[in-house]
Amino acid sequence: MSKVFTDISISLDGFVAGPNPSLEKPLGESGEKLHEWVFRLASFRERHGMDGGVRDEDDELLATSVAATGAVVMGRKMFSGGEGSWEDDPNADGWWGDDPPFHVPVFVLTHHARETLHKDGGTSFNFVTGGLEAALEQARAATGGKDVAIGGGASVIQQALKAGQLDELRLHVAPILLGGGTRLFERLGIEPLQLEPAGAASSPYVTHLTFGRGGNS
Amino acid sequence: MSKVFTDISISLDGFVAGPNPSLEKPLGESGEKLHEWVFRLASFRERHGMDGGVRDEDDELLATSVAATGAVVMGRKMFSGGEGSWEDDPNADGWWGDDPPFHVPVFVLTHHARETLHKDGGTSFNFVTGGLEAALEQARAATGGKDVAIGGGASVIQQALKAGQLDELRLHVAPILLGGGTRLFERLGIEPLQLEPAGAASSPYVTHLTFGRGGNS
Repeated sequence: MSKVFTDISISLDGFVAGPNPSLEKPLGESGEKLHEWVFRLASFRERHGMDGGVRDEDDELLATSVAATGAVVMGRKMFSGGEGSWEDDPNADGWWGDDPPFHVPVFVLTHHARETLHKDGGTSFNFVTGGLEAALEQARAATGGKDVAIGGGASVIQQALKAGQLDELRLHVAPILLGGGTRLFERLGIEPLQLEPAGAASSPYVTHLTFGRGGNS
Repeated sequence: MSKVFTDISISLDGFVAGPNPSLEKPLGESGEKLHEWVFRLASFRERHGMDGGVRDEDDELLATSVAATGAVVMGRKMFSGGEGSWEDDPNADGWWGDDPPFHVPVFVLTHHARETLHKDGGTSFNFVTGGLEAALEQARAATGGKDVAIGGGASVIQQALKAGQLDELRLHVAPILLGGGTRLFERLGIEPLQLEPAGAASSPYVTHLTFGRGGNS
């Protein structure tokens, strides 16, 4: 069966966005540093329609993850690009442009039903009002045997963890202390929760940690 | 020159002790799970005067760290074994017994001067009233060319990070979410702080991450 996984960049002190986010700095102060490791990679650039980039161990890991992804589940804010824009205009087109980097069906958690948006390059945005488990079920059915990626944001990943729906958690630890911001793990109400280490690797840019379900999850 | 490093066990959500510590549970709820990976190792048992234990990749890593350690710096609470006992009795013998597991000179940060305590097995407790940098200086002079380990607690490691005195941070990530407790990285006032990934490895029990100083530290 399709596995449900997430790839998320996180600071060494546990933040997935920096302090004081604003319209100009949606990732918060220094938040862009969480993602620096990925911007340089050929697989990232290719997926976003750009040339160049390096093909190293980090790139291989990203390419493997992309190749395994048959569908994506994301939150409403990740689709719409921030607070408010969705409620302001329920038919807003999102902020991913005409050729989004997903190239697979995307299932967006929302409270507002709407028709599927078909974009260039194989991305479709499918709007699911039945909650996370419904979205995962629809996503699984659309993968063609590949895996389901939870794209984010942090709250959707937390929901999946709480619901026991996350098979694999892949953390990409940026070597920085941010001192504040949005925590991925913040009193989820399911602790203590045991996971299972399933691999680790580091490059000069980032440290990759993988965890599977533990005995009690 | 001697390197200053620390080895510390930490939960995946960033805690070095669990919530609600008490006299019965000094590491807090589920806090002992942070250290389970080490209790099973031959090198740990040997250092504590016990037989048995396994010799695997985790053990090799611990043995390497122990072999490289020429002196240890620790806080007063780590010496005395908890809150209060030191102030109650400034000549208290600590809680490490007659044959402590360090087997090298230990430098204890304190506000109360006292004579060096010599223990069996090569451990001496040397009391330093001049602060962290004085303790590190004395420790470096006592290593015989080996490295200085900062033994803890979290506040001493934080002091060393803030003072730019930590050359290598070795985190041993226990695969558990604790949901609360004592954080290692908690608004240190030096963020954003860039570090440098210097290695990662995982076993079924623990994930090891090493970081060196970054460009701006």
